[in-house]
Amino acid sequence: MTAAVDDLRSAFGELTALHGWAPLQTPRSLLLALTGRVGAVASIVQWQPETGRDLVTPELRDELADCLVYLVALSDALGVDLVDDAVTRIRGAVEAATP
Amino acid sequence: MTAAVDDLRSAFGELTALHGWAPLQTPRSLLLALTGRVGAVASIVQWQPETGRDLVTPELRDELADCLVYLVALSDALGVDLVDDAVTRIRGAVEAATP
Amino acid sequence: MTAAVDDLRSAFGELTALHGWAPLQTPRSLLLALTGRVGAVASIVQWQPETGRDLVTPELRDELADCLVYLVALSDALGVDLVDDAVTRIRGAVEAATP
Amino acid sequence: MTAAVDDLRSAFGELTALHGWAPLQTPRSLLLALTGRVGAVASIVQWQPETGRDLVTPELRDELADCLVYLVALSDALGVDLVDDAVTRIRGAVEAATP
Repeated sequence: MTAAVDDLRSAFGELTALHGWAPLQTPRSLLLALTGRVGAVASIVQWQPETGRDLVTPELRDELADCLVYLVALSDALGVDLVDDAVTRIRGAVEAATP
Repeated sequence: MTAAVDDLRSAFGELTALHGWAPLQTPRSLLLALTGRVGAVASIVQWQPETGRDLVTPELRDELADCLVYLVALSDALGVDLVDDAVTRIRGAVEAATP
Repeated sequence: MTAAVDDLRSAFGELTALHGWAPLQTPRSLLLALTGRVGAVASIVQWQPETGRDLVTPELRDELADCLVYLVALSDALGVDLVDDAVTRIRGAVEAATP
Repeated sequence: MTAAVDDLRSAFGELTALHGWAPLQTPRSLLLALTGRVGAVASIVQWQPETGRDLVTPELRDELADCLVYLVALSDALGVDLVDDAVTRIRGAVEAATP
């Protein structure tokens, strides 16, 4: 599978509709949800000296996935084109750093 | 522009090579960087009663973009297929919730 | 100086009164402020392989101090006796772990 | 009970010794642990429109207490006098704001 952020957006929209979650998904609530998932990733790796591919668990993958879900949902709620912005920003940094 | 996460991955790889940042980008360091950018988003909106599209500033867009940059870089460093995982996870939740 | 959390509480109450900040300091806003300061600490140390006493800067000390300010203010806003709760919790864990 | 941060420090030192946790408690690991607990607080309140005293659960109190535990442990690991720094910082802000 080679999924795109648009597939995620559409699946999350379906899930939101099924549960009637739309009124809950204000930007601040989505930001707190993102904070929660980043915190969960931190909790999983906190006592590992360094984290490598061999230490990836299904739980860690779920939490990383949820980080993306809430980051995309937060950006959508703010009308921000997240992936385009990120690419533009990094390409600009590449240009600035290119001799 | 309709950028994809792969465009971001390739631009960030170029930036990393230009600066020689690869040795710095361990999973734990990338996770701290992600924590930092999520914290920066929180700082921007912290005293707003609620955050709407009209309150989006270039600074907020930059910080959201950086969240995505570091979340993708962290997942790549761990060998995790972030977007696929997220779509699979949400589609599973949709199926589970569908009567 | 050997300050106590009560000194902090009283100084922060004074600052809040001087600026008329009370209406802004809802639990969710204080939590976002705490998230922001923890993120700032993370940003400062993110590319250091490990952080020791020799790497402590005034900026890092300020951010740690602000973490405490907002954690205490959040707990106060929720009517939670933070220090008592923490001591009780850790003492309970000590008892449970004592053979 | 009117506990002080020193009581917490001593109880946590005892717990650390009992479990032999000292080698794990590097500044970066303690910072990730703090990030994790702040994230847990965020997860608890994320879908509440605003969080008041009536919404405080034992779980929320435990997570706030753990935030303090890890913030104090992180500061101690860095040789930073957290409470003194915070009081000095806020008193300075009070003086600066006093007409």
